Amino acid sequence: MTYCLAMRLDEGLVFLADTRTNAGVDNIGHYRKLHTVHSGHDRFFVLESAGNLATTQEVLDRIHRDLSTNGDHESLATVNHLFEAALYIGRLNLEVAASHREGLGGAGGTATFILGGQVGGEDPDILLIYPEGNYIRASDDQPFLQIGETKYGKYLLELAVRPDVEAITATKIALASMMMTARANLSVGPPYDLGIYLNGSYELDAFRLTDVSPVMQHLAQIWEEHMLQAFRDLPAITRGDLAAKDLAELAARAQKVTGDQ
Amino acid sequence: MTYCLAMRLDEGLVFLADTRTNAGVDNIGHYRKLHTVHSGHDRFFVLESAGNLATTQEVLDRIHRDLSTNGDHESLATVNHLFEAALYIGRLNLEVAASHREGLGGAGGTATFILGGQVGGEDPDILLIYPEGNYIRASDDQPFLQIGETKYGKYLLELAVRPDVEAITATKIALASMMMTARANLSVGPPYDLGIYLNGSYELDAFRLTDVSPVMQHLAQIWEEHMLQAFRDLPAITRGDLAAKDLAELAARAQKVTGDQ
Repeated sequence: MTYCLAMRLDEGLVFLADTRTNAGVDNIGHYRKLHTVHSGHDRFFVLESAGNLATTQEVLDRIHRDLSTNGDHESLATVNHLFEAALYIGRLNLEVAASHREGLGGAGGTATFILGGQVGGEDPDILLIYPEGNYIRASDDQPFLQIGETKYGKYLLELAVRPDVEAITATKIALASMMMTARANLSVGPPYDLGIYLNGSYELDAFRLTDVSPVMQHLAQIWEEHMLQAFRDLPAITRGDLAAKDLAELAARAQKVTGDQ
Repeated sequence: MTYCLAMRLDEGLVFLADTRTNAGVDNIGHYRKLHTVHSGHDRFFVLESAGNLATTQEVLDRIHRDLSTNGDHESLATVNHLFEAALYIGRLNLEVAASHREGLGGAGGTATFILGGQVGGEDPDILLIYPEGNYIRASDDQPFLQIGETKYGKYLLELAVRPDVEAITATKIALASMMMTARANLSVGPPYDLGIYLNGSYELDAFRLTDVSPVMQHLAQIWEEHMLQAFRDLPAITRGDLAAKDLAELAARAQKVTGDQ
């Protein structure tokens, strides 16, 4: 499986993707799932992929072939809006899956993408492209998207991702969400590809973090210490607490136990 | 959906279950999913259920009918070991599902159970009963089991559940895992049923926590504050950090930034 996420902040976009692929537990591979496509000075695209590896690779190959071939066909150089890029990739995705359906015995070979980027003077955005070829944007209130193994790390994103979060904090949230997922699910694993896009820059700050990366080791250690400390700091629950009728009564009970004023 | 978990600690067993059921988003109900069965002074059983509601209710009804009917048939009063109780419930589960398969148009109507308890002088244990009728124990190293929506809250259990954790701490871990699940998935929700079983007591300390329960409000508030504080406390990640070769270099860099000795 896979875990990719993207955030749309006031400051810019943040992307994080793992690299583990598997076809059964005895066939583990590492493939990049975060891709950048440059197709003109006024536009910039980041693509994250989950699902059938053959399908995602052929979609990417077709995107690059369309860009390098002369003609009046649609490509990431011709689209005028980010949503048109999403529809274009959605169409390629459908075409690739359909072309292999018979060979795959009717099975899907489907893929899902997150497309991020900026076209012309438009605001940067992130869109989730479904295997069916349509797309959705991230919500205004909780501006993140996930594909792949989305459940393990979702709580943190729900809790902490807001448009006004700074990219540097968003990076910590993203890495914590990834660590929680990789710890609970073997099919998600390092190295991780991190991308930070600042509005109007038309280029991605890209980093690769391995499992022996000091930053990852440091973050994992501090994060786990914080989690365990949180359990120690949470108040012990007594039978009386469980029967308390309101927060004032609970607070009074806590005062009595600790002797606080 | 559902989220139920159980832990097997040196001190005893801890159970936590939500109560939300749904047949489509416009048909939400509340049903108890944590059940206790008394079938003799030397034995004690707790059952948590996930899956088809009709199947789980009929399995419970059959368990109670077997207990109240005279005869030499198998029941929770006749089994000599906890694993025999698991196989008995697994058999009822298969029988109920099979009896409705035709009516359900070939669909499963399957259910999954966690069985906890103590029989005679045996150590208390927790077992997961599959829809296929077989079972597994919790592992020795990380002695917890989950059924239903297991992914959202799994990281915390992996991180913190060990046999020597005290029941009072385990309760906090369980409630935090439940809060993270309910926050990220609408199909899991309060009230929550909490059960604490101390070894050899042959009875369950049972509590029901509603969404307006002061304890839940208090815990949720403190938990979220701790999570957000953790993000603030995690070190900011700079481009230099990302390129650091080892932890010593990272530590030196952090000293330089903060001026620490």
